[in-house]
Amino acid sequence: MAAPPAVDVILHNATVVTVDGALRVLRDGAVAVAGDRIAAVGPSADVLAAFPGAAQTLDLGGRIVLPGLVNTHVHTSQQLARGIADDVDLMTWLHGRIWPYESHMTEEDSYASTLLCGIELIRSGVTCFAEAGGQFVSEMARAVELLGLRACLTKSTMDCGEGLPPNWSSCSTDDCIQSQKELYKKHHNTADGRIRIWFGLRQIMNATDRLLLETRDVALKLNTGIHMVLTQNLLHIAEIPYENQLIVRTKGIDHGTVTYLEKIDFLRSNLLAAHSVWLNEPEIGHFSKAGVKVSHCPASAMRMLGFAPIREMLDSGVCVSLGTDGAPSNNRMSIVDEMYLASLINKGREAYISGTTNPTALPAETVLEMATINGAKAVLWDNEIGSLEVGKKADLVVVNPFIWSMVPLHDSIANIIYCMRTENIESVMCNGQWIMKDHKIMSLNEEEVISSAVKRANDLLERAGINLPKRMNYV
Amino acid sequence: MAAPPAVDVILHNATVVTVDGALRVLRDGAVAVAGDRIAAVGPSADVLAAFPGAAQTLDLGGRIVLPGLVNTHVHTSQQLARGIADDVDLMTWLHGRIWPYESHMTEEDSYASTLLCGIELIRSGVTCFAEAGGQFVSEMARAVELLGLRACLTKSTMDCGEGLPPNWSSCSTDDCIQSQKELYKKHHNTADGRIRIWFGLRQIMNATDRLLLETRDVALKLNTGIHMVLTQNLLHIAEIPYENQLIVRTKGIDHGTVTYLEKIDFLRSNLLAAHSVWLNEPEIGHFSKAGVKVSHCPASAMRMLGFAPIREMLDSGVCVSLGTDGAPSNNRMSIVDEMYLASLINKGREAYISGTTNPTALPAETVLEMATINGAKAVLWDNEIGSLEVGKKADLVVVNPFIWSMVPLHDSIANIIYCMRTENIESVMCNGQWIMKDHKIMSLNEEEVISSAVKRANDLLERAGINLPKRMNYV
Repeated sequence: MAAPPAVDVILHNATVVTVDGALRVLRDGAVAVAGDRIAAVGPSADVLAAFPGAAQTLDLGGRIVLPGLVNTHVHTSQQLARGIADDVDLMTWLHGRIWPYESHMTEEDSYASTLLCGIELIRSGVTCFAEAGGQFVSEMARAVELLGLRACLTKSTMDCGEGLPPNWSSCSTDDCIQSQKELYKKHHNTADGRIRIWFGLRQIMNATDRLLLETRDVALKLNTGIHMVLTQNLLHIAEIPYENQLIVRTKGIDHGTVTYLEKIDFLRSNLLAAHSVWLNEPEIGHFSKAGVKVSHCPASAMRMLGFAPIREMLDSGVCVSLGTDGAPSNNRMSIVDEMYLASLINKGREAYISGTTNPTALPAETVLEMATINGAKAVLWDNEIGSLEVGKKADLVVVNPFIWSMVPLHDSIANIIYCMRTENIESVMCNGQWIMKDHKIMSLNEEEVISSAVKRANDLLERAGINLPKRMNYV
Repeated sequence: MAAPPAVDVILHNATVVTVDGALRVLRDGAVAVAGDRIAAVGPSADVLAAFPGAAQTLDLGGRIVLPGLVNTHVHTSQQLARGIADDVDLMTWLHGRIWPYESHMTEEDSYASTLLCGIELIRSGVTCFAEAGGQFVSEMARAVELLGLRACLTKSTMDCGEGLPPNWSSCSTDDCIQSQKELYKKHHNTADGRIRIWFGLRQIMNATDRLLLETRDVALKLNTGIHMVLTQNLLHIAEIPYENQLIVRTKGIDHGTVTYLEKIDFLRSNLLAAHSVWLNEPEIGHFSKAGVKVSHCPASAMRMLGFAPIREMLDSGVCVSLGTDGAPSNNRMSIVDEMYLASLINKGREAYISGTTNPTALPAETVLEMATINGAKAVLWDNEIGSLEVGKKADLVVVNPFIWSMVPLHDSIANIIYCMRTENIESVMCNGQWIMKDHKIMSLNEEEVISSAVKRANDLLERAGINLPKRMNYV
């Protein structure tokens, strides 16, 4: 019999919420970590006995251990823009705020923005995220490498479209594909395997059919994913139903974007579709059949986009995960809050469907799966993350449930969704490394990052000529 | 000219958000506190010069000072029940969970529950709350006195109604009125004036017309308020529209509860109506004309009750404030989160009305008014609280906006609503006393309170025979 692996750390005396296939919760459980992987999950006594030579044993005193949370739609480049586009209509949001901001951003701004965003991701228990698409992927990769996070990075890609800012426009289809292939070659599977490169499609209105289909083929060939904002993108120019209406009018399809994408045979199981609001029943069927994954962003949807048929998608077997969207669309970049919102909002949404809320819709255990194993599936990484199982990567979160915000603990799973706040997220491990320990971010000086990012944010707004009206009478 | 008052503390070098009549924000502002009142609000240099003999001056380094937040609907007695009633239908919520819990509660349980709830209120920046109605008002008063909070306490009152637990039933109309008069006599204006006693009406289905009208008359005579849950109470036995339907059927009125209450001449400006979902236009008119105040509880409404016409009420001049409801209905008891939710949910609600969300609905400045000055008006205390003005009580919150959760600060008011989390609430003053300083609750040992409350909560659930199903596979 082979000797047990050399174990670096055993976390024991914990409530271990595995989110494995059997949804096991160990009441007095332990997780052993060897290198970047989980070597054991089991009762504390058994795990401690099995690895007597563990380099470190940590008694968690009954704390909760969760799989690292996965944020499947986040604009790391927009963190410096938090607060620049609140309470405005879509035209102002886009033309007056977001486009000027993004088109004046430098590579160094993007690095600072990703670091700042990463701090908030870690503090909300996230170990893996899917970038929604930005301009400077190499800078994102540099920041992710430092932060210690796991990420699927994506370039914002457009090969057509009107009305873009003069200093910032779409590129040719070939250039779009080629530049992403180069990013893939340069960064895919770097940072100890924590970084993967995906293909991006900013939205259907900025993508020719050729770009859609070549993206499909190249991503399949390279065995990676496609991140696309689908059906009611923030970045269209008219009212909310505009994207669907445009597709209906120009393409002669009876409903909207998803119907069109199905018709051209674009939908595949490596597609991560963000938002996906206002899908009808046949379109949910297309997603289900093709194995398309969805990133539900509750706050952003409530604010700007509308209701997504989350319960119906889950009922149809669609893998629905959770995302925050970007800072000017939310503005809390916290999956802890999105879990709470997902459950609340989808209960309330039933009033839109049936006239009455449904307090049983999206129960806590479902939402926890959305933020963990479904997130892992959505980013095509569930063979290695999303649950606490032997052989998977050691991505986990230590939750202290004994402070004011979560007590009493009659129902731990419910309290994780409804009560837990970022205060409860005590430590976070990614790839076997503590990236936050006892509330301290490990790899960087948080105050310095914040200070530098704030300065860059102010300079960027000035450069972009963005002036916000005053909401109150400043004297 | 009279000498300036002896000032105990000057908070200076702050962004002072006054929420006064002119909605002034002082960029480099100061607040001087003398005893329990605000002695000055103005530019730092002016205030420091005016009170050279101040006992203490605190340089806030650019932090934000807000008026103390007001939570206008909270069940302090339900804090021990957090997590006992999540994701269940209303029948289970009421008969299987809440009634067994409340009817097995002791006076000491209520004290422990109020202390635990009070910690969360303070940590979310609340200095004043309106109790929704519990059984043991004297115990609430004892806890509020210790916590240092300001509160309008209310007894849960019912003089009729079927189906209540055997050990817990309604009392006669006379007893209902008499017991509340006694509480008023014993506790009103105690704890240095921080405690007021209000009259309570649990819901229309547990109140005879005589109780309604005598409550109206006695409260007016004693110059105090009435706290009532209105229009889609959690505590009714059938579906959501049941309360309205019952009223329509039994009283021959064309819409529902509010129409009926208007008809019997019950509505007055000292009425605080919690929830108020599904009101129609004439009913909003009744509220507006009578000066009825509303407590909007966004999380609880999304989960269980449905959409309240908040934008329409505000447009009609109704004073709408914010509440958390009780822990088994939310379960975060944080006005910080309710502010965020109020803005998001009422943007999304527009899709229910018009088919599209409206990102401009309930802008940040409106929500901040709801949580401060409107809250003060709702609890009939705006002559002394709800804004930072000379002569008002010194109820205030110091916010540190420079940490990860709120930066960058392009729009302070927006960030207070959309980004601020309890981590940002650094210190809280009520009635001129620090009740939290640098994140430390001042008047009690927080760990001891939590430990004792958790034990009581577990014992209470066992006594009440409440067994929660397991959501996952515990081993």
